[in-house]
Amino acid sequence: MTNCFYKEWILHMSTSLTSREIGVAVLGLGTIGGAVARAIVDDSAAIERTSGLQLRLIGGTVCNIDAAVERTGLDRRLISTDGAALVDNPAVQVVIEVMGGEQPAAELMARALASGKHVVTANKEAVSKHMPAILAAAHNGDAGFLCEASVGGGIPLIAALRQILATNRVESVRGIVNGTTNFILSKMDAEGADYAPTLAEAQALGYAEPDPTADVEGYDASYKLAILASLMLGRHVRPEEIDRTGITGVSAADIQDAQSRNGTIRLIASAVRDGDSAILRVAPTFIPNDDMFSRVVRNYNAIEIVGDRVGPVLLHGQGAGPAPTASAILSDVVEVVRGGSRVTPRVI
Amino acid sequence: MTNCFYKEWILHMSTSLTSREIGVAVLGLGTIGGAVARAIVDDSAAIERTSGLQLRLIGGTVCNIDAAVERTGLDRRLISTDGAALVDNPAVQVVIEVMGGEQPAAELMARALASGKHVVTANKEAVSKHMPAILAAAHNGDAGFLCEASVGGGIPLIAALRQILATNRVESVRGIVNGTTNFILSKMDAEGADYAPTLAEAQALGYAEPDPTADVEGYDASYKLAILASLMLGRHVRPEEIDRTGITGVSAADIQDAQSRNGTIRLIASAVRDGDSAILRVAPTFIPNDDMFSRVVRNYNAIEIVGDRVGPVLLHGQGAGPAPTASAILSDVVEVVRGGSRVTPRVI
Repeated sequence: MTNCFYKEWILHMSTSLTSREIGVAVLGLGTIGGAVARAIVDDSAAIERTSGLQLRLIGGTVCNIDAAVERTGLDRRLISTDGAALVDNPAVQVVIEVMGGEQPAAELMARALASGKHVVTANKEAVSKHMPAILAAAHNGDAGFLCEASVGGGIPLIAALRQILATNRVESVRGIVNGTTNFILSKMDAEGADYAPTLAEAQALGYAEPDPTADVEGYDASYKLAILASLMLGRHVRPEEIDRTGITGVSAADIQDAQSRNGTIRLIASAVRDGDSAILRVAPTFIPNDDMFSRVVRNYNAIEIVGDRVGPVLLHGQGAGPAPTASAILSDVVEVVRGGSRVTPRVI
Repeated sequence: MTNCFYKEWILHMSTSLTSREIGVAVLGLGTIGGAVARAIVDDSAAIERTSGLQLRLIGGTVCNIDAAVERTGLDRRLISTDGAALVDNPAVQVVIEVMGGEQPAAELMARALASGKHVVTANKEAVSKHMPAILAAAHNGDAGFLCEASVGGGIPLIAALRQILATNRVESVRGIVNGTTNFILSKMDAEGADYAPTLAEAQALGYAEPDPTADVEGYDASYKLAILASLMLGRHVRPEEIDRTGITGVSAADIQDAQSRNGTIRLIASAVRDGDSAILRVAPTFIPNDDMFSRVVRNYNAIEIVGDRVGPVLLHGQGAGPAPTASAILSDVVEVVRGGSRVTPRVI
């Protein structure tokens, strides 16, 4: 009955609720991973109250242990550099993968899943490129896999898409899925500034990476769109299938021109159904001022799902940042554990 | 493993998927109920493809059988006037309650749940007023209960709120939850018209009922807010606890005044946390033009949830209408069956 919130709600208020301890590993104690690990350590009582699950941090991995101890304040004995050893630790039941990049992330996820451990990830690159291997491992290991935080940060976008997909033919998924480029474009729009100085400012403020290629060339958006389109179409959509243009060619003059036509420019990722396939594109796009997307500023994300029954549904929220991303990851951990146990007794 | 969409996704594509037939009853074959019943009859193959469930309509109830046959085109043998008899039919596993009103809806839901049948409803009045009895019956009958369609029509709002609640302290839930009043207010704003003629126009177009009291006096919004606030606070929030003002006192002059202050007026339902409780209000509210809510027009709904980790998340979509509401109801049926069977084998 774990899907029925009212029952959970009764049971959460019941004093006789018996909790189950869940061992969690965090691969990649960076900004996101550090926030997740700290939440597990610091907020376990609150998480137990709302979810019925007692999460216990078994360990985390990182390249530089000293720096991670400094950054996270975690007990040094919890931190190691060996991802495979941590995945294999019998106390670990759920692996949170937030190391980023393609490898070894994808291999470690497959390793965990194949041995029956649930995996939760925010890693859009590894998921979009290695989806078949990851899914096959989940299937073979009878383990659960969720990746809500890989698209739209803390916005419950994949949850919404799943619910709509259950009983709709999805006609399109379209929106702003990269906070860095939205920060730059909305700032150029507001201030009339050109691309290069605005990028430099975004970098100085921490909204863009020192090497901004993945964001400004549209790779990050194409990974995210590939994941959404895979769900929409029910097959592996590879990032290379997406017609991708970044924002490096957008000038102040382009934005002025859009303004003169009562609009602005945003980097739009879109999958528009075309029979059993879809037209897949990431590109700077003219957005009229009366379109909701024109109101999406700073590092916010907004995604519109159009279903044949439900019509257009728009979701808007913070697409990045440690706290929103940690929120989505922890919700996935709760869900994967609730839905993912056939053998051990359910919590409720 | 039913919560893990990737696994479902693999399995949905597998040709060896064995389906399970689920007997469904529809209490109330009105506009919504008729659309749901027709979808079950007409689209069962598509629903089976996306959900793995084979839904079978056991029957529906209505006051006037002849009119229902005319309206829905359903086989007359499927339609009766006796809700209790249909609920008790051993072939029925899921009861969809869309008859509306407080009674006998609440009693029939409790009857079904107590006997172990899952219930899905769109009935905000019965749920908001009789939540404890409904939940107790679900608990006693070990049955699932979902009501996504009761708030926000087809918008996956309760799914989003549940995901956020799992790991956030929700600070506020606030938004436009009544399509009729939003249609009237946004039309008054666009056309400078006064309340009475705009209501008459909305009635002529079918956006407002012949007796518009429930909508224009804010009762409908207060039922919906009571459900959201109950989830947020983890206790039964009764509609009477909400400070409620309708839109009948909003004049063209009020809207002009708001426009002169760079804003407009919308009927806002809000639950803003105050310690362990919340300030609960439904009232016409000044909305600045740079606020997303000012862009919500016609019969659309928009709701913002603010969590302590995730920050503000906004959802926007059609809050009413047969197709969006049927979408939410059918998704709930799929979810309640997936999550609600401990004894019989799972579909996947």
